[in-house]
Amino acid sequence: MLTSNFIGYNRSANGQDSFQAESPESGEKLPESFYWATDGELEETVALSANAFEVYKKVSLLARAHFLEAIAQELNNDSTAIIERVSLETGYPNGRARNEFVRTCNQVLLFAKMLREGSWVDARIDTADAERKPAAKPDIRRLLVPLGPVVVFGASNFPLAFSTIGGDTVSALAAGCPVIVKAHPLHPGTNALVSLAIVRAALHQRMPEGVFSSLHLTNEMAEQLVMHPYIKAVGFTGSRSTGLRLYEAALKRDYPIPVYAEMSSINPVVVLPGAIHTNGAVIAAGLADAISLGAGQFCTNPGLLILVNTADTEHFIRQLANATNEKAPQPMLSKAILKNYFEKLTGILSLAGVSPLHDHPAGHEEAKGSNKVKPFLFEVSGATFLANIALQEEVFGPATMIVRCDGFDELAAVLEFIESQLTATVHATSSDDIFLQQKIIGILANKVGRIIFNGYPTGVEVGDAMQHGGPYPSTSDVRFTSVGTAAVIRFVRPIAFQDFPDSLLPPALQRSNPENILRKVNGQLTSEKL
Amino acid sequence: MLTSNFIGYNRSANGQDSFQAESPESGEKLPESFYWATDGELEETVALSANAFEVYKKVSLLARAHFLEAIAQELNNDSTAIIERVSLETGYPNGRARNEFVRTCNQVLLFAKMLREGSWVDARIDTADAERKPAAKPDIRRLLVPLGPVVVFGASNFPLAFSTIGGDTVSALAAGCPVIVKAHPLHPGTNALVSLAIVRAALHQRMPEGVFSSLHLTNEMAEQLVMHPYIKAVGFTGSRSTGLRLYEAALKRDYPIPVYAEMSSINPVVVLPGAIHTNGAVIAAGLADAISLGAGQFCTNPGLLILVNTADTEHFIRQLANATNEKAPQPMLSKAILKNYFEKLTGILSLAGVSPLHDHPAGHEEAKGSNKVKPFLFEVSGATFLANIALQEEVFGPATMIVRCDGFDELAAVLEFIESQLTATVHATSSDDIFLQQKIIGILANKVGRIIFNGYPTGVEVGDAMQHGGPYPSTSDVRFTSVGTAAVIRFVRPIAFQDFPDSLLPPALQRSNPENILRKVNGQLTSEKL
Repeated sequence: MLTSNFIGYNRSANGQDSFQAESPESGEKLPESFYWATDGELEETVALSANAFEVYKKVSLLARAHFLEAIAQELNNDSTAIIERVSLETGYPNGRARNEFVRTCNQVLLFAKMLREGSWVDARIDTADAERKPAAKPDIRRLLVPLGPVVVFGASNFPLAFSTIGGDTVSALAAGCPVIVKAHPLHPGTNALVSLAIVRAALHQRMPEGVFSSLHLTNEMAEQLVMHPYIKAVGFTGSRSTGLRLYEAALKRDYPIPVYAEMSSINPVVVLPGAIHTNGAVIAAGLADAISLGAGQFCTNPGLLILVNTADTEHFIRQLANATNEKAPQPMLSKAILKNYFEKLTGILSLAGVSPLHDHPAGHEEAKGSNKVKPFLFEVSGATFLANIALQEEVFGPATMIVRCDGFDELAAVLEFIESQLTATVHATSSDDIFLQQKIIGILANKVGRIIFNGYPTGVEVGDAMQHGGPYPSTSDVRFTSVGTAAVIRFVRPIAFQDFPDSLLPPALQRSNPENILRKVNGQLTSEKL
Repeated sequence: MLTSNFIGYNRSANGQDSFQAESPESGEKLPESFYWATDGELEETVALSANAFEVYKKVSLLARAHFLEAIAQELNNDSTAIIERVSLETGYPNGRARNEFVRTCNQVLLFAKMLREGSWVDARIDTADAERKPAAKPDIRRLLVPLGPVVVFGASNFPLAFSTIGGDTVSALAAGCPVIVKAHPLHPGTNALVSLAIVRAALHQRMPEGVFSSLHLTNEMAEQLVMHPYIKAVGFTGSRSTGLRLYEAALKRDYPIPVYAEMSSINPVVVLPGAIHTNGAVIAAGLADAISLGAGQFCTNPGLLILVNTADTEHFIRQLANATNEKAPQPMLSKAILKNYFEKLTGILSLAGVSPLHDHPAGHEEAKGSNKVKPFLFEVSGATFLANIALQEEVFGPATMIVRCDGFDELAAVLEFIESQLTATVHATSSDDIFLQQKIIGILANKVGRIIFNGYPTGVEVGDAMQHGGPYPSTSDVRFTSVGTAAVIRFVRPIAFQDFPDSLLPPALQRSNPENILRKVNGQLTSEKL
């Protein structure tokens, strides 16, 4: 029954309609039929989730940490099967699938560690002062509490790290919110194996039934779920069109809810003349690696390379073109994604002033009859770039546009013209003017959530300091991150208790500090009792 | 030229149309004519604000603290004039005006203290590890940076604490955002005196011109300002209809921005039978004070009192009615607010099952020819309350509805039926069942931002632990507060720097920690250098 929906502790396949995953490598359909959830299954899931919330929100930080640790353990117990299924459903080589698996387990454990440490609940205690004039000062205590049931949309390109037990799910579970995953239809088998691991962990740790569910939902049903009055937040990673549709739908609810949609980004990389002159070959090789990684199917794929014309520029571009040409073709995740990639590229190549550096990837011998593509570079002048905002549309895949600017003023104009992004990258050396570097960083800092210096945007480190999220429209809400421990605050809200008896307070605010967490007491951080 | 708009360091009155404030005490127009801002003045203000942002965002935390401290100093220099003008324009007694003045200055200084301490920028540093496998770990550093120019709407009922230099303005300035105040038309003279103080402080502290402006804007022009592409956030305190209009308008921008609208709340108070039996007279007196405070013109006014019928209930209600009857009539802020109050009350009294405990306040002798009203109580059964959601609409003024429940099950049903609110209050003693208390608190905690135990909701303490903001529709965004130091995070966003040279990092992330703030370095809070 791997092919069913996971509703609380049970599996359910009441629907008539089903679908099959495909192997991106072979193009063949995989044998299992997965059943789309029915209206009844959706309602049952949401009701279980709402009931689970009333219990789960009171589960201690330590018990939540144990739950996450048990999930990591259960995932590890099934690692071979999960990694194999990821490769089968995505076409990712075993090494890439294994790396994503390890990263995903580490991410689960990082949030468990955060729960054990506990300061993220931001407990604040201002004690009373009966003598204060003109009025006595009350005792006020505040902490962050979970929002309620959260819907998480699995992402096509990260079957583990941004899907069933990805960053959205684990940060919502850490926050104290039950999760309903809308499984991504490209990797339903991976979803099943991961869901089983989570359900086993929930059972062993005696979590309330409904703390986790996963459903196969058509787009229409998924929107119905987002509109459900019991749902209190949504995490989404995917295309701009779908992200905006969900974001706008959620605002039309009677009770609007946050939709954290990570949508699209072309991640500009600026390589300054000094860096090219000193280090061009190394940068070209690094960029070629970043552009081709995972067939370019990364939200942080460098889709825009910006250069200033000097005597070294032509040579650098040739180095980059050669380095990308040497990359082996890799399969894209699905025929639909491949088709979209070819169509967008064809549209761009039809525009005036766009010069390809390679043959159209649809013409490659290796591509025929498979989903495989090679990276693809094309070039425009600064003036062409500035004349057409459509050039900035994300092309999901290993395509990168090179913008050659005629001097530093045009470079600044190009940077000002770029839409907001998840990341930006600057390559510079000491021979590049420091004021120019500062100016470029200043412009980019207004537009992105993360800036990389002399590196590449594709690795997204999972830690306390990561910011993965930029100004609209790269994400729907610039104030939050979807990667790293700070992602937890997307699913909480503050509440204050005034003059409460100790026994009626949540543990994090009680006199004895039973969870032994760092709290701000009358302005001072301390883990002491009151 | 007190009657003009304050645009950067200059005053401007280019418009043809003007208005005058009125004395709520006398009903007479005050002599000064204030000029509505023109399109040109609005554009000039926004451009100055955007330019100021590029400078102000780099101003150190300490220099911002000095700026706020200078504002408090300048306000104190003009305290007599400001307090007099508040009383003149609001009808508040001198004592109330003075208290609000002191509270406002303390609030400014609290944010200055927060800036000096600095940990709120949430600096996080995860250092590199070149040896890590399978890939080297980069150096990632993250902090909160200001969003950009902020529009603040002055509130009718708090000419100081929630207006020109109120909580929204001071938290935006602390965050590093320039502010444009939409002055409230009920107290334009107060706005002018406060604006002058801020401008003097900005000049003395060499802040960039445009860090603060205040404009008289018609509703149409105010919406135009909210839609301006340079504006990055909005703070609003006022009616639900205006708040929702601005909130929805801002979402239709090309780049949606957060609108922090604090809208309406009737602040339920539950008094359990044990508390009435033990302490009824004291609670009745306290409630009468809270209901009549400021003629009920508080967002935390207790507009809903919920009781369970026992042998003591009738007597308690009589005590409360007597205590409110003894309150002197007080002026409402304007004829329009008075008219709205009478109309809403009249509408409610026409509903079946609604029993007034006093004469309609429009009939009071004292009310005739003035804006003055006495507090007003009316009563419904639990069944009547549950049958008509319109009874929950806020009546801005000193009106309170008493809901008498027929037993604890009906009490629970009534609490479940209440819309979300800023606050809720529970009065209980040890003779009230503890499980019932926990159940009630559990229901209310899902619906409010602050719960008060054996107290009254009307005082909103300004400190680290305050939460002033509840679930929609009491505010537009449950994740934030508009009072207390946590209000600053409404106007910031995170950004991460990866592998940056020290000299190109913001001071808060530099090796030497020049601002000497608490930072999270590799998971440990420390103010040490790296």
